[in-house]
Amino acid sequence: MSGLFISLEGPEGAGKSTQARHLAAALRAEGRAVLETREPGGTPLGDRVREAVLYAEIEVAPVAEFLLYSASRAQLVRDVIRPALERGEVVICDRYADSSMAYQGHGRGLPLEFVEDVTWQATGGLRPHLTFLFDLDPRIGLERAARKGQPDRLERADLSFHARVREGFLELARAQPERIYVLDATRPEPEITAEILEVLRSSLRYLPAGRPE
Amino acid sequence: MSGLFISLEGPEGAGKSTQARHLAAALRAEGRAVLETREPGGTPLGDRVREAVLYAEIEVAPVAEFLLYSASRAQLVRDVIRPALERGEVVICDRYADSSMAYQGHGRGLPLEFVEDVTWQATGGLRPHLTFLFDLDPRIGLERAARKGQPDRLERADLSFHARVREGFLELARAQPERIYVLDATRPEPEITAEILEVLRSSLRYLPAGRPE
Repeated sequence: MSGLFISLEGPEGAGKSTQARHLAAALRAEGRAVLETREPGGTPLGDRVREAVLYAEIEVAPVAEFLLYSASRAQLVRDVIRPALERGEVVICDRYADSSMAYQGHGRGLPLEFVEDVTWQATGGLRPHLTFLFDLDPRIGLERAARKGQPDRLERADLSFHARVREGFLELARAQPERIYVLDATRPEPEITAEILEVLRSSLRYLPAGRPE
Repeated sequence: MSGLFISLEGPEGAGKSTQARHLAAALRAEGRAVLETREPGGTPLGDRVREAVLYAEIEVAPVAEFLLYSASRAQLVRDVIRPALERGEVVICDRYADSSMAYQGHGRGLPLEFVEDVTWQATGGLRPHLTFLFDLDPRIGLERAARKGQPDRLERADLSFHARVREGFLELARAQPERIYVLDATRPEPEITAEILEVLRSSLRYLPAGRPE
C-alpha cells in the first residue's frame, strides 16, 4: 500500500475535526488525493452503529459499546481505508483504534489485551503511519463541547472517566513515540495547523505526490 | 442464579421459533415464569443491530458481522437474560453463542479461538444449561425459509456455506453432549415438541417451580 494513513485522537472538544479540515485542504492544495473519514461511522453500516451507540435511550454495556465500535472499524478499514491507501491517497481519520484503548480500555476498564486482540482482528493489523494526539485537560474539553450544543452520551460521562481516558492516550503515546505525536490542544488553532503540517512534511517526503483523477 | 437457560440452535427454517412458542406455552401451563427472547435482538440496541446486519444494502464484513452479533449478545445477557435467571425464570433464547461459532467461525472462517474469546467477554461466561440443536439438511431448511417469504441475507448465502455451518453445529454437539441435545428437525412438529419436553423434565426437576408475579 502506497498511501499515508493519519489518525487524529483525543477528547471531544479538542479541535480534531477542525484540524482535519485544515490538514485536508493544505494537502489538496499541494495536489494530493485526500480521503477524510471518521469513527464511528464512515460507512452506511458504521453510521447506523454510530447512531445506535451515541444516541441510545438506555445505557450501552461497555463491552457492547466496544464491539460495536470495532465492527464499525472493521467495515471502514475494508471498504474505505484500505482501498484509499492502495490508490496511494492520504487518509485522514478522525478517531481510530487508539480511541478504543483509551475510552473502552482505560476509561471503562475492559482488559487492554482483549481490546488489542479484537482490534487486530477487526483491522487486519492496520495501524496509522502517524497519529496526532490532541492532549487537553478534560474540564476544558467538556466546556468547549458543551458550548457547541447538546452533549452526546460520551460527553455526559463523569470527569474521572475522562481523566482516565486522557492518561490512557498519553500512555499509548509514551509506548509508541515513533507513531503518536502529542499536541497541546490549548494552543491557538493556526499554530496547531502549522505544527501538524511541519510534522507531516517529513513523512510525505517518502511518498509519491498524489495525482487525483 | 436459580433459573434455567435454554437455547435453540440450528439453521433458518428448522422450526426453532415455532418450538420456542410451544415450549413456552407448555412451561407456562405448569405455572412457570418464562422469558422468550431471540438473537440478534431482544433489546432496543439489539434490534437496531439486527436490522443493520440482516438488511444491510452492502455486504457486511464477516468480522464486523460477528462483532455486531456479539455486541447484541452482551447487551441481551446484561439487561434481559441474567436478570430473568436471577428471578428464577426459564429463559428460552432463539439462537445464542453457538450460532456465532457455527456461522461466523465454521461458516465464514473466523478463527474459532477468537470467536470463543469474544463470546466469553461479551457474556461474562454465561452458557445455556441446555441447548436444543435443530439438525437439518441445508437444502430442506432453505426451501422451508423461502416458502415463508423474502429470504434475508443469511438465507441467500450459498449452500456450501450452510453445509459448513451444519457441520460446525454438530461438532459443538459432539464436544459438549451434556449440554447440546441434537434433534432431527425433519420429524413432525408435535413429535419434536414432545421430545423437547421429555428432555426438559429431567432438568426442571432440579428447579423450584416458578411463580410469576
